[in-house]
Amino acid sequence: MKTENASKFPQVVIIGGGFGGLEVAKALADEPVDVLMLDKHNYHTFQPLLYQVATGSLEAGSISFSLRKNFDDQKNFRFRMTEVTKINPDKNTLDTTIGEIPYDYLVIASGSTTNFFGNKDIEHNAMPMKSIVEALNLRYLILQNLEEAVLQKTKEEREPYLSFVLVGAGPTGVELAGALAELRNHILNKDYPELQKEHMKVYLVDFMPRVLSSMSEQASKAAKDFLTGMGVEVMTGEKVESYDGTTITFEGGKSIHTKNVIWSAGVMGSVPEGFAQDIIERGNRIRTDNICRADGYENIFAIGDVAAMITADTPKGHPGVAQVAIQMGKTTGKNILHIIKGEPTQQFKYFDKGSLATIGRNKAVADLGKIKFQGFFAWLVWMFVHLISLLGFRNKVVVFINWVGSYISNNGGSRLIIRKFAKEGAPRTEDDLVKSD
Amino acid sequence: MKTENASKFPQVVIIGGGFGGLEVAKALADEPVDVLMLDKHNYHTFQPLLYQVATGSLEAGSISFSLRKNFDDQKNFRFRMTEVTKINPDKNTLDTTIGEIPYDYLVIASGSTTNFFGNKDIEHNAMPMKSIVEALNLRYLILQNLEEAVLQKTKEEREPYLSFVLVGAGPTGVELAGALAELRNHILNKDYPELQKEHMKVYLVDFMPRVLSSMSEQASKAAKDFLTGMGVEVMTGEKVESYDGTTITFEGGKSIHTKNVIWSAGVMGSVPEGFAQDIIERGNRIRTDNICRADGYENIFAIGDVAAMITADTPKGHPGVAQVAIQMGKTTGKNILHIIKGEPTQQFKYFDKGSLATIGRNKAVADLGKIKFQGFFAWLVWMFVHLISLLGFRNKVVVFINWVGSYISNNGGSRLIIRKFAKEGAPRTEDDLVKSD
Repeated sequence: MKTENASKFPQVVIIGGGFGGLEVAKALADEPVDVLMLDKHNYHTFQPLLYQVATGSLEAGSISFSLRKNFDDQKNFRFRMTEVTKINPDKNTLDTTIGEIPYDYLVIASGSTTNFFGNKDIEHNAMPMKSIVEALNLRYLILQNLEEAVLQKTKEEREPYLSFVLVGAGPTGVELAGALAELRNHILNKDYPELQKEHMKVYLVDFMPRVLSSMSEQASKAAKDFLTGMGVEVMTGEKVESYDGTTITFEGGKSIHTKNVIWSAGVMGSVPEGFAQDIIERGNRIRTDNICRADGYENIFAIGDVAAMITADTPKGHPGVAQVAIQMGKTTGKNILHIIKGEPTQQFKYFDKGSLATIGRNKAVADLGKIKFQGFFAWLVWMFVHLISLLGFRNKVVVFINWVGSYISNNGGSRLIIRKFAKEGAPRTEDDLVKSD
Repeated sequence: MKTENASKFPQVVIIGGGFGGLEVAKALADEPVDVLMLDKHNYHTFQPLLYQVATGSLEAGSISFSLRKNFDDQKNFRFRMTEVTKINPDKNTLDTTIGEIPYDYLVIASGSTTNFFGNKDIEHNAMPMKSIVEALNLRYLILQNLEEAVLQKTKEEREPYLSFVLVGAGPTGVELAGALAELRNHILNKDYPELQKEHMKVYLVDFMPRVLSSMSEQASKAAKDFLTGMGVEVMTGEKVESYDGTTITFEGGKSIHTKNVIWSAGVMGSVPEGFAQDIIERGNRIRTDNICRADGYENIFAIGDVAAMITADTPKGHPGVAQVAIQMGKTTGKNILHIIKGEPTQQFKYFDKGSLATIGRNKAVADLGKIKFQGFFAWLVWMFVHLISLLGFRNKVVVFINWVGSYISNNGGSRLIIRKFAKEGAPRTEDDLVKSD
């Protein structure tokens, strides 16, 4: 399926409109290629702010942006909302839910999904938070459980509804823990006068010895201090054994009664079917050479979370962060043009701009190369970086207004339960949701 | 179930957090009563702007506001998210999904839902638009059908996906018709370069001889001219016979191939079970006396869309508009206090502030008493009135920014398909959705 104004130009198909896919498409603007982007959603998701959607601080529409609208002005760009079911490298086509699609060059930028490491029990009962729909479901669950807590007669009966266990103390877990602590500290008593904030508990769990283990020791320590100061119980060095929907149990026998377990302890690449299994690396990622080309293929590239560029410098590949995807996307777009034009390709070099994580009001941690700082200034940097990275002027303005409003009132966000989330046997992961919705 | 800080004060239970219910609760602030509001959602919906959610111009969160947050400061206010299944007037209690709730005074402010007038065929296949979830489903259907249109090979195959039939030419139908026409005229070619705007058709149908039949002849004529000028096909004096999901048929044999039929041709009161059938008036409304008290009951009031105050002056009751609900809510709040204090009650008198409807950019119609005007100034008035009526400062600002952005760019809105809407056999009405979600 070439699009209507098909030309004699080679067709570059991009799977996924995340940070990486966007950059590939942009790099190909005004060039003699046809660009076809495929995504199961018609929007780009700004994943770093999903946790604010989950806590009701931001609306979904403020951190999503229509892919069609984003490329309104790019003449060689086409979009199809579809899911890729299989890659057929031998005939250079994709099987999709809207039929077979040919490609001359293929860029796999399909990102990652939650890794439950095979624990079905946890997969069935814990909440993931890797997509807009998952973040919304999590929001509804949190708010519904606060409503349920109001109806309980004793402190013991309220406990599981008011206990929040976040597994995985990476940036997602840390930021969500901070946001939930602020919900408790500033909003709970106002919105739910029947509840006492002392009864709401937030636990942040990781099997590693420190939070934000991908950042500096200094950042970890400051983050932990911030969290503890806000009333989060930090449980590092703890490994989850099971979760049955009511009780989470840890190795060694410790347990917590909770209806709210949020799992951000691991991701795995979303690799379409059709690849030789021997190029799939740890974390379900596609092994690539140093120009992001899938090992053994001439015209297939993999970038971002779904890629593992294994080289002497990067024996485990690159970290699964937006900057890697963005930089790989830019390089790959240019390299496809180089290949088409018969020019030499450019090797990918990751430039690490540093890491940021926010914990709450005036509290963030920043590792920018050798410069490490924490607190108010880090928090300003965090806000600035996230605002400028959001797609769309309107989204920037709306998010900024929300943040200013929240800062002034200490009671930001709207906390709406638009659709009830059915707790028993409900679809939880993005894949389930797409099938059932 | 009295709430935790139950007192010796009489308990006023309000069913519904719409325009009417809000005013009752506000009127009872700082008075010696306990207020308990029940709503199946935890938010108030600003219904006049639902059509902008349906066309993707505004996000759901911008026209909804948390009921708990709205009453944060009102000490005698409590909220429960629940559905009332039955009223037991003999023992002054309600059956609800969270148990039995007693009341001393009851205000039914449960509003109205779509009336399909018993046509199951239409009810099953057409889209209603009376709630946030229904407006979102409609948005997803519209956008999914545009995506489907892109995939079709011929003009004939695209036709049903690109034809939009709005049944009911009241303010909702007129405003939605205008918004869809603007989507076609300004956005379609940009977002969907494969489609031609000439192939998208918007039909506005009513069995009455004119659009906006509740407004002046002058407003009707201007609205029709605006719509026609924007390319909407206005079909007045046409009665729908059936709709099977693909073809809508009119009396006399005319028909249109369409996958998009939006039904706003009638409403009916959402009356809880438990009332004597003889006080239910036309349109499923509760007959009340001139202080909004349900006929034959001492302590039960009905206000807004669910009420029919049948008097010599108002033989058919009042129109189903926000102003009636607001004014009835204020009066009822005060009257409950009068009754408690043994003071004389105050008769309800509706003050008609006039009617407004917008058709599009710079185009609206206004009937303000004897002053009738149309065009740019009416449009400014419409925007001003709607902005100041929205709950919440943040919502006002966000909606204002969206409108300014849309005005400048002619390409406002985000048009996100957050959840796919399954067309076949999917729940369509709010009631279905609550059950299935």
